Amino acid sequence: MEGKEEDVRLGANKFTERQPIGTAAQSQDGKDYVEPPPAPLFEEEELTSWSFYRAGIAEFIATFLFLYISVLTVMGVVKSNTKCSTVGIQGIAWAFGGMIFALVYCTAGGHINPAVTFGLFLARKLSLTRALFYMVMQCLGAICGAGVVKGFMGAGQYGRLGGGANAVAHGYTKGDGLGAEIIGTFVLVYTVFSATDAKRSARDSHVPILAPLPIGFAVFLVHLATIPITGTGINPARSLGAAIIYNKDHGWDDHWIFWVGPFIGAALAALYHQVVIRAIPFKSS
Amino acid sequence: MEGKEEDVRLGANKFTERQPIGTAAQSQDGKDYVEPPPAPLFEEEELTSWSFYRAGIAEFIATFLFLYISVLTVMGVVKSNTKCSTVGIQGIAWAFGGMIFALVYCTAGGHINPAVTFGLFLARKLSLTRALFYMVMQCLGAICGAGVVKGFMGAGQYGRLGGGANAVAHGYTKGDGLGAEIIGTFVLVYTVFSATDAKRSARDSHVPILAPLPIGFAVFLVHLATIPITGTGINPARSLGAAIIYNKDHGWDDHWIFWVGPFIGAALAALYHQVVIRAIPFKSS
Amino acid sequence: MEGKEEDVRLGANKFTERQPIGTAAQSQDGKDYVEPPPAPLFEEEELTSWSFYRAGIAEFIATFLFLYISVLTVMGVVKSNTKCSTVGIQGIAWAFGGMIFALVYCTAGGHINPAVTFGLFLARKLSLTRALFYMVMQCLGAICGAGVVKGFMGAGQYGRLGGGANAVAHGYTKGDGLGAEIIGTFVLVYTVFSATDAKRSARDSHVPILAPLPIGFAVFLVHLATIPITGTGINPARSLGAAIIYNKDHGWDDHWIFWVGPFIGAALAALYHQVVIRAIPFKSS
Amino acid sequence: MEGKEEDVRLGANKFTERQPIGTAAQSQDGKDYVEPPPAPLFEEEELTSWSFYRAGIAEFIATFLFLYISVLTVMGVVKSNTKCSTVGIQGIAWAFGGMIFALVYCTAGGHINPAVTFGLFLARKLSLTRALFYMVMQCLGAICGAGVVKGFMGAGQYGRLGGGANAVAHGYTKGDGLGAEIIGTFVLVYTVFSATDAKRSARDSHVPILAPLPIGFAVFLVHLATIPITGTGINPARSLGAAIIYNKDHGWDDHWIFWVGPFIGAALAALYHQVVIRAIPFKSS
Repeated sequence: MEGKEEDVRLGANKFTERQPIGTAAQSQDGKDYVEPPPAPLFEEEELTSWSFYRAGIAEFIATFLFLYISVLTVMGVVKSNTKCSTVGIQGIAWAFGGMIFALVYCTAGGHINPAVTFGLFLARKLSLTRALFYMVMQCLGAICGAGVVKGFMGAGQYGRLGGGANAVAHGYTKGDGLGAEIIGTFVLVYTVFSATDAKRSARDSHVPILAPLPIGFAVFLVHLATIPITGTGINPARSLGAAIIYNKDHGWDDHWIFWVGPFIGAALAALYHQVVIRAIPFKSS
Repeated sequence: MEGKEEDVRLGANKFTERQPIGTAAQSQDGKDYVEPPPAPLFEEEELTSWSFYRAGIAEFIATFLFLYISVLTVMGVVKSNTKCSTVGIQGIAWAFGGMIFALVYCTAGGHINPAVTFGLFLARKLSLTRALFYMVMQCLGAICGAGVVKGFMGAGQYGRLGGGANAVAHGYTKGDGLGAEIIGTFVLVYTVFSATDAKRSARDSHVPILAPLPIGFAVFLVHLATIPITGTGINPARSLGAAIIYNKDHGWDDHWIFWVGPFIGAALAALYHQVVIRAIPFKSS
Repeated sequence: MEGKEEDVRLGANKFTERQPIGTAAQSQDGKDYVEPPPAPLFEEEELTSWSFYRAGIAEFIATFLFLYISVLTVMGVVKSNTKCSTVGIQGIAWAFGGMIFALVYCTAGGHINPAVTFGLFLARKLSLTRALFYMVMQCLGAICGAGVVKGFMGAGQYGRLGGGANAVAHGYTKGDGLGAEIIGTFVLVYTVFSATDAKRSARDSHVPILAPLPIGFAVFLVHLATIPITGTGINPARSLGAAIIYNKDHGWDDHWIFWVGPFIGAALAALYHQVVIRAIPFKSS
Repeated sequence: MEGKEEDVRLGANKFTERQPIGTAAQSQDGKDYVEPPPAPLFEEEELTSWSFYRAGIAEFIATFLFLYISVLTVMGVVKSNTKCSTVGIQGIAWAFGGMIFALVYCTAGGHINPAVTFGLFLARKLSLTRALFYMVMQCLGAICGAGVVKGFMGAGQYGRLGGGANAVAHGYTKGDGLGAEIIGTFVLVYTVFSATDAKRSARDSHVPILAPLPIGFAVFLVHLATIPITGTGINPARSLGAAIIYNKDHGWDDHWIFWVGPFIGAALAALYHQVVIRAIPFKSS
């Protein structure tokens, strides 16, 4: 497929699309962009390059800062007796979404989320080695970030306040929680795929310019909607870090949901983007 | 009119405009851009292209995600006993506006709203076939999105919480509600027209770059202002989806307002943009 | 001065600035941009061009929509018995700032504010004829916008809720109110000058791209800070429109503050930008 | 090192990176950008250029406006008896972060913060003379800004309301406060370094375009998280200005934390950026 591709056609497709906006704008295939070849599963050379380890350290630091700011914001809201004087659930949503915006910008497109790494791996945007390395660094960073918050709050207070751990709220079934995680992660990873589409970047210059902003907003919006249901995970490293530092049964009971849900959501987003939007399986090579 | 046009002049117009900012910046007609020809009403070839169906699927998925996130946010606010701990009406407005920002970005300019489709159709930006196909897909997506929320909340609870359905609030007449829908949709569709103006895009490179952001903000702002009056529709698919899933008399009584209002508002915005801003009827061909 | 200029130098200035960011970045004068000549006071030809009237209509419509959305948001907050369920003062600030963002974008740099028009007129960016025409259209638009809100709310309720009119709050002197309006308008007009600087636009491509966003944010921020003091005017058309439609003594007593304050603030911002930032009076011609 | 550099390599590094997003995107060293040489410690010529003094005046005005708007917002929230009707802690966070966004935009990259100046000085982006001059102007501006707020509120009321001064909150140790200031400033200065990286700017055109936005968001997010702990300083000029105008023991007790913390945080961010991200110490000259 190396750089060549042809759009799938049900028939003649010669007329120019007229809508100035619309997904149809993606359909004219004039080969004005180069699709990068799929990443190999293992890439030995990678392991000897400084850029590989640097990227891993950047994932660690970014996920550390992400958990630190967001869990500290959660603590401030939960701790307060008079809810009105806190930043509220909306402030928590801003903390999660805003940090993803700032950190995706700072790292020039870091993942900061194993589900994002998994989705991009399925689309063969990075090697398996790199994907696993990123996920490990993300989880380590998340644990450290939550740990620093526990250090500030004191272990007793941190435990009483719930530690920012994810769980399915009273009144919802485990199925509801799993569904919320799947669709929430779909929203996030769908946005990531849209923002990093080589075809769109070549045509619409605004795509890479704004990219970190809609990605951060996607995280913000999913939090607005699903904090009342699961506390919103959509990021297994964030869920794991909070659960390990909180370390109570309450934090572990539903933990599988925050790995299975995000990975299913990311896979569906990768599938949707590759099959429907890019129609890659139907292309002639 | 194919690509040619001349600005309407009441007299000599030779002097260069001096304002660095201002609507007047749109007035120098140096033919440095190409106005796309109006779309035909029916375009048979369209029906055989993959891009036509792909765009429809993208409208379905986007409207599905739009209703899912926004109605779920409404449910979280209505359900809570202590309003202060919820994201509040401001959070609801962010959910609606923020999703439109993210989804317009993700779909590279999807409509996600029959009123937007109608306005762009009046301006002959897309064919009637395509406009109708988009509207059907938007309504189906909206129904599914609200349906998933009902699945999560349970039918009983969903019904008690109002289901996110639009209605004219106590203390306002049906005329107030209709007026609020007309002006609110005018704000949205006016922004869409401004963001997709071929003439402006050619001159001000910032127009297409920022486009999804002011469109999303327009939706956010109209919600801030009119949630207390009608719950804010300005999107017939959103109103229909919520009404069908809610399916109580309360949800259907004023339903016509949320189709008639947005369509009138969209038509006025199209008229304003074509007649006043672009002065198309007065142009020599 | 026609297009030529030389930076004022206290001594040798041959070394290249090294900061990648910083106001100093504005100082290398390589004549890589053209300063537009100052606008004449009267320009007869302008009065016969369609673009002149179109710009005026656009100011009318934009100020109409600005007052409609913002005053309606204020009404929603004031009317509610349980403040926590409203969008709150923060929501009001978003309504004012967000509308300015969206409308400056939609009008490609409309003023929507007599103080902005006055500041740009002092900097000779537009003729006196045009400045006066804009101000009249802005005031008419503001009156109509507030009037529609009164129509929706009913005259009695509109009056009881204060009608969004500006006044100096209890506990502050008229001097405090005037000072708050002066500094608040300075923040806004300083941002407008920064965003429309021909010299910066030529060097930093991000200046015109983001322009509407910091202008809208400036309005949002001044509202956050001074709503408790004056309700925040910084826009004489907004203050006049609300006062005329409210039309009670309470709304007229301090009305002069909302014209004198913004005009002084705009003049100071023009002075600061021309004298300090651009050093125009010290330049050799 | 003048303009030359070579990436540190642990081994072969010939393969092209494939990730469309990711920090790894920073790793291909094709010398397609010029690293500016480090600034000298003292630069005599600078002292005789108008641009040097203009930049200082701009720092003064920007820090003045920053303290004025943000401390006034704090006063509005603290003064109100019914917290729900104020903009709340979230509104305070928006005031601080939003002003930094607007002012970094207006000053085309002003520092408005001695910690930012210190971090950029450590990276040799500006001379020691300039760094000290900026810091003095920032502190003077901050004092004047807080002073104007005191003038509006009256000295008695200003004192009762806490004057926006920073202090470690009850329930946290001085070590917690210092840690919060260090990590908070790290987040801010890390974002500043990411936004002003010459290597990234050359490759990703979106870096300078969005720059003021993530910098402002970083300030907003740190405030969301640490207002309950220290009131959030991360800016010694802001802390000094509020402390001098407030001038009570309560305001001075922990004052050292708001200089030591931010300077350590800025130094760590400079170190992280130079050593890990840019790997400058390991580069061959």
